[in-house]
Amino acid sequence: MLTVKAYAAPSATEPLVPTTIERRDVGANDVLIAIAYAGVCHSDIHTVREDWGPITFPQVVGHEIVGEVTAVGGDVTKFAVGDRVGVGCMVNSCRECENCAAGMEQYCLAGNTGTYASVDRDGTITQGGYSTHVVVDQDFVLRVPEAIPYEAAAPLLCAGITTYSPLAHWNAGPGKRVAVVGMGGLGHMAVKIASAMGAEVTVLSQTLSKKDDGLAFGATDYYATSDKETFKALRNTFDLVINTVSASLDFDRYVKLLRLDGVWVNVGAPADPVSMRVFSLFANRRSFAGSNIGGIAETQEMLDFCAEHGIAPETELISADEINDAYERVLRSDVRYRFVIDTATL
Amino acid sequence: MLTVKAYAAPSATEPLVPTTIERRDVGANDVLIAIAYAGVCHSDIHTVREDWGPITFPQVVGHEIVGEVTAVGGDVTKFAVGDRVGVGCMVNSCRECENCAAGMEQYCLAGNTGTYASVDRDGTITQGGYSTHVVVDQDFVLRVPEAIPYEAAAPLLCAGITTYSPLAHWNAGPGKRVAVVGMGGLGHMAVKIASAMGAEVTVLSQTLSKKDDGLAFGATDYYATSDKETFKALRNTFDLVINTVSASLDFDRYVKLLRLDGVWVNVGAPADPVSMRVFSLFANRRSFAGSNIGGIAETQEMLDFCAEHGIAPETELISADEINDAYERVLRSDVRYRFVIDTATL
Repeated sequence: MLTVKAYAAPSATEPLVPTTIERRDVGANDVLIAIAYAGVCHSDIHTVREDWGPITFPQVVGHEIVGEVTAVGGDVTKFAVGDRVGVGCMVNSCRECENCAAGMEQYCLAGNTGTYASVDRDGTITQGGYSTHVVVDQDFVLRVPEAIPYEAAAPLLCAGITTYSPLAHWNAGPGKRVAVVGMGGLGHMAVKIASAMGAEVTVLSQTLSKKDDGLAFGATDYYATSDKETFKALRNTFDLVINTVSASLDFDRYVKLLRLDGVWVNVGAPADPVSMRVFSLFANRRSFAGSNIGGIAETQEMLDFCAEHGIAPETELISADEINDAYERVLRSDVRYRFVIDTATL
Repeated sequence: MLTVKAYAAPSATEPLVPTTIERRDVGANDVLIAIAYAGVCHSDIHTVREDWGPITFPQVVGHEIVGEVTAVGGDVTKFAVGDRVGVGCMVNSCRECENCAAGMEQYCLAGNTGTYASVDRDGTITQGGYSTHVVVDQDFVLRVPEAIPYEAAAPLLCAGITTYSPLAHWNAGPGKRVAVVGMGGLGHMAVKIASAMGAEVTVLSQTLSKKDDGLAFGATDYYATSDKETFKALRNTFDLVINTVSASLDFDRYVKLLRLDGVWVNVGAPADPVSMRVFSLFANRRSFAGSNIGGIAETQEMLDFCAEHGIAPETELISADEINDAYERVLRSDVRYRFVIDTATL
């Protein structure tokens, strides 16, 4: 066992605090990663505050992890010491079900093993990336292309793949009108990626405060959802909407923005059930879908796509003692656009 | 104007009664149809009882109409006197919007003109098929193939196309596992059509009372939704579910039956909003969609498909004075599987 530094939540109501945790010994298929940076995702906050259900404390979160391989197990073939690597939202799956067999480990029918707050194969609770080191099976480790700066790579592992996957699956590209709801960590990545795919991108944000940024990231239009005229002007417009907002919306009003065969994709996860009239979906044969991160092969594809197109998230580097403040700022949307923890400060 | 016999609802709370109504003069593009049979659709009942909102009375319903052309306007090129024809759920659309241009008149952005209870181009309220004659623009008239018996053709115009359209759009066919929820007028057509398309079809009905019928119609499996084991046994199974039930269901429980990229399609229209957890859609990247009847070209395609595959609905012929009893029987699911009115009895 390896004792490593980390920042953990002691309970659902207390601030995160510095601590140490144990990492398992490096197994035959494992890679030991010296974490350089870890992104701060809104999901981290939902999890430690138990918005999505009870968890076991203390809990280290963080599933946007980049670093350097410092040791490998005897059967590791994919990585070598010194490699630049990343770990995203999952660290294992059953590897046997039809979804795993199809390379869609995120939809593992036995449930994928989350990077934190999940029960690992050995029965322990997984601990995330707000830490100096992590041990991960090579099959769930990504290669970070040289073209992507280390610090910028971290948010791609969740915010990047979570938006890339539905954009790719529902064919965002030339001739397609895509709307992105919410201009936070996920939203700003969705704009950059959809734009690089060739789609015509519109941002729907509560206000116009980030309009200049949205246009700079590749959007051609930017509308405030606080303005009722937006919903009239954009009715029956979009082929695809990526909704990054985890609060519940007035979906009857929003889905009317979809044109014929338009698809609404929620990547944000409201804690409460959503309500919608089926009649809202009858018009234009609309669909309402969910999408959950992406598979490992697809995550590598996304990293390579971002490297090729020069796509990187906008980040604000913080030290470990700023994590609790950063949480408050995320909750009031005061971040442009992703906090990244420098793990050297742990 | 032509005065014709009909059966009309005087109000939302009274039984339908015999009456006469006026049909417009046959215009240059119009076809006059002597109606032979009219199907009884659950939507007829929802409409006259104002379940879906207020309407203007008296109202004649019925949107599963077959009969013979007895007169044509001067510019009519598609039909001649003596032709066997049908009319379904719509009799007009704007013909200019992008959806009409794409042959998807049912999704007309200005709203298609329903066969009954809609405002027609001339400002009058459309009156449906529980009548001896109707005047319809030739562009909204279908040709009934000789191979389909007159009486059997009627339910195809709503129950047939409403299930054919989503089955065709979402690629029901060999290798696809399709579930049909509800074994009523629409459900039994969905089973026959999906089976003819080559899909593996499972029926999900409240009880097993119609199991023998379901298997005879082409289903390979038949499950009772009143049995909790059904939901365990069929979890993650279907590529496509066609839900013909207009009552609200426990959708969180039902959508779990969808496998990877499975699509739930509601053709039933609950009056109240439905409630669902987005997490239920995250798993397996599920979609929840609505589908509304079909376009005119697609309806003709469906009729030709049914003729080619020998598909006909199961019907029970009734006389006009049995309509009110038939409504009560539809409401308690006591019909196998579609009432058809012999309009000679009007």
